[in-house]
Amino acid sequence: MTDWATYLDQNKPRHLAELMDLVRIPSISSLPEHATDVRAAGAWTAQRLEAAGVENVRIMETGGHPVVYGDWRHAPGKPTALIYGHFDVQPVDPLDLWTTPPFEPTIRDGRLYGRGASDDKGNMLGPVLAVEALLQTTGTLPLNVKFLIEGQEEIGSPQLGHFIAAHTDLLACDLVLNADAGQWSETEPALWVGLRGMCAANIDVEGANSDLHSGMYGGAVANPLHALAYILDSMHAPDGTITVDGFYDDVAELTEADRVRIAAVPHDETAYKAHLGIDELHGEPGYTTYERLWVRPTLEVVGMWGGFQGEGIKTVLPREAHAKISCRLVPHQDPYRVLDCIERHVQAHTPPGVTVAFRPMPSVAYPYVVDADDAGQQAARAVLVDMYGREPYLVRAGGSVPVTEMFLRHLGAFSVSLGFGLNDERFHAPDEFFRIDSFYRGPVAYCQMLEKLGAAD
Amino acid sequence: MTDWATYLDQNKPRHLAELMDLVRIPSISSLPEHATDVRAAGAWTAQRLEAAGVENVRIMETGGHPVVYGDWRHAPGKPTALIYGHFDVQPVDPLDLWTTPPFEPTIRDGRLYGRGASDDKGNMLGPVLAVEALLQTTGTLPLNVKFLIEGQEEIGSPQLGHFIAAHTDLLACDLVLNADAGQWSETEPALWVGLRGMCAANIDVEGANSDLHSGMYGGAVANPLHALAYILDSMHAPDGTITVDGFYDDVAELTEADRVRIAAVPHDETAYKAHLGIDELHGEPGYTTYERLWVRPTLEVVGMWGGFQGEGIKTVLPREAHAKISCRLVPHQDPYRVLDCIERHVQAHTPPGVTVAFRPMPSVAYPYVVDADDAGQQAARAVLVDMYGREPYLVRAGGSVPVTEMFLRHLGAFSVSLGFGLNDERFHAPDEFFRIDSFYRGPVAYCQMLEKLGAAD
Repeated sequence: MTDWATYLDQNKPRHLAELMDLVRIPSISSLPEHATDVRAAGAWTAQRLEAAGVENVRIMETGGHPVVYGDWRHAPGKPTALIYGHFDVQPVDPLDLWTTPPFEPTIRDGRLYGRGASDDKGNMLGPVLAVEALLQTTGTLPLNVKFLIEGQEEIGSPQLGHFIAAHTDLLACDLVLNADAGQWSETEPALWVGLRGMCAANIDVEGANSDLHSGMYGGAVANPLHALAYILDSMHAPDGTITVDGFYDDVAELTEADRVRIAAVPHDETAYKAHLGIDELHGEPGYTTYERLWVRPTLEVVGMWGGFQGEGIKTVLPREAHAKISCRLVPHQDPYRVLDCIERHVQAHTPPGVTVAFRPMPSVAYPYVVDADDAGQQAARAVLVDMYGREPYLVRAGGSVPVTEMFLRHLGAFSVSLGFGLNDERFHAPDEFFRIDSFYRGPVAYCQMLEKLGAAD
Repeated sequence: MTDWATYLDQNKPRHLAELMDLVRIPSISSLPEHATDVRAAGAWTAQRLEAAGVENVRIMETGGHPVVYGDWRHAPGKPTALIYGHFDVQPVDPLDLWTTPPFEPTIRDGRLYGRGASDDKGNMLGPVLAVEALLQTTGTLPLNVKFLIEGQEEIGSPQLGHFIAAHTDLLACDLVLNADAGQWSETEPALWVGLRGMCAANIDVEGANSDLHSGMYGGAVANPLHALAYILDSMHAPDGTITVDGFYDDVAELTEADRVRIAAVPHDETAYKAHLGIDELHGEPGYTTYERLWVRPTLEVVGMWGGFQGEGIKTVLPREAHAKISCRLVPHQDPYRVLDCIERHVQAHTPPGVTVAFRPMPSVAYPYVVDADDAGQQAARAVLVDMYGREPYLVRAGGSVPVTEMFLRHLGAFSVSLGFGLNDERFHAPDEFFRIDSFYRGPVAYCQMLEKLGAAD
């Protein structure tokens, strides 16, 4: 019998082919026409868990996109780790900016290109392949394991909070291992100790009851596009500060210790700008880039449209205009209170001649912070020090993984983020890719992590 | 031999069926994929002119969409009228707001519904059917006639100025009869003595070199949607005044006499608002609605887009954002000077972290005013007094018909607008229609107009 490391090494080609199979499923959770594909990706995941030797595998309903559950509980007296990941992906537009089609996974230069390759299909498979390797080579696992792999992460997991709350016995665990995570660089590890929360809303402006000829009515009737530009522009000062009354009320102010810890994380501003192709960064005055990204909240317009978008010109005052906004939240902001502030702002800034509807989206996430001394964090730290030969940076993520906060609230379990995505891998953008070396690193790290957690107890 | 009135009466069903045939051709000039359809509508028009007895009919190239020319010149010593109209139409989006498909003409309640039914296919056929009726019943015409029917009016006739300048001999005339026009109401005539000019431009904002995850970058990198909202909002004060430096510099100020003449045109503000489905009008302070529409310039955003427009949410900072703006101009504004002002404004209001491209569109129109005492205007006045039993209102149009200014500049000929569209007929919007009574009125008016012009000389 080989050891798990040899097993993983020998099975690399098969594991990569399996990831490509999963990437081929266009499981875009935000688009209703892809609901069947999300379900298909769930079925694929369930089958893969069973093949790995996970027991009690089932697809469970949430009222929206399903989740996949499975477990292996033959380590009495040992702790239980709940392993989390997701099989849904972001939309792919603008499609014409993809070098190869998003759902035809393609290998170029040691990278696998395709929507979801990195976020989160490639990372999510890490612990699955680790469990398979341990069971195939040792016949057992060093601790009890549960899997909860979901299909609505990219839309903010709207039904998952309720699902977890309704299944606290099934999901009971000592800690969560979150595979929706990343490394710092190919040679430097990181441990995520905080995540921003999130809330989002639609803003719909309506003017006249019909599109109007801009010559026949322009100048005498309010233009919903002007109204929308006014409302959106009113939410920020030119320097980037958010000007919505009450928005910052509950924000925890940065301590000097926070600033020092954040400043310890390396940041090459020149390389950062070059990577993004911009000459200048832009954000809230008085804060560094990491402070802006990790401990300061944002209000971003993520979509805006109305009127004629074709080639040439259509001289029209459109009847309606629309925007979508999304906020990233930090301790101790409450997503619902923030939405209330923004709604009041929109009402107060509705210009004459139009009506405006503010429609919050169902998915919200509370901000989340974990102590670096937590036992799970310490085990991950040890694995990462072994693997990279250096201490991980303790960082926060600007993004939101709403479930971490849900796990804490409903299961009383902190999450340890153990994943191998890298920031340049264009999650949510055209030409998403995952480094194939990072893909192979995942199962190795999870084998070590499970052994470490099993030994510690 | 019947008289022309009887001929027109007897041929109503055939003429309506012909209009429906023409409306079926989706000749949208702004969309490249409809270029063949524009050409098909031109071929249909050429064939119809020949069937009416017009001679020397030909489709002529402009470098863009073609024009149709034809003439009848057997009235020596009599004046020559150049008859103008267009066979291209506006785009049809949003398609789901049409009760019946835009290119399946449908009769409901004495109205013909379909894109272009009123603007301008139904109106353009008026003089064609008049010439046919006169030739069929009298064997001759009371004056010389030339037709210039074009296919690029709805995109601002970008190549027509050059075409007219290059064919001044062919198009030489004493006056222009413009069938792209309207009546005041079903019982009240109007004569158009002015038209606003036009210019338009694209504004393209670019940020980073890729769409970015709003969690990973939001707060530290400029968002092109915020930049675009800022730029667009900066162009107007909240009260509707345009705040672009120099925009109003050349605008002819309203005289007290202008105000009195405009105030003489009836305006039912309550009905106007009810028709539009709005509670409140909105425009430049200190001017009435007609003043805002006829003698004051505008700067309107007619399209704006960027980021995610689907259902739900995509947490993205898009790499780019776009807008289209269109201005209506009044004497003595110069479209190119106005575009320069706006470009300077955009450059001065480009926020940090993004680049902005300002791309003027090729189609411009100079504002146009004609004297009400002009002989052509007086002939039309007499026809309208006969037909409606009352004096026409002397009005200006908020819209632009660029060719009127081109005819004046290159041919030295003023245009008389003689058409039967009505403002509620939703040109440029879903559910465009033409009153069938108005359609039948067109050829009658043109028979009388041609007789009046032939007799006067």
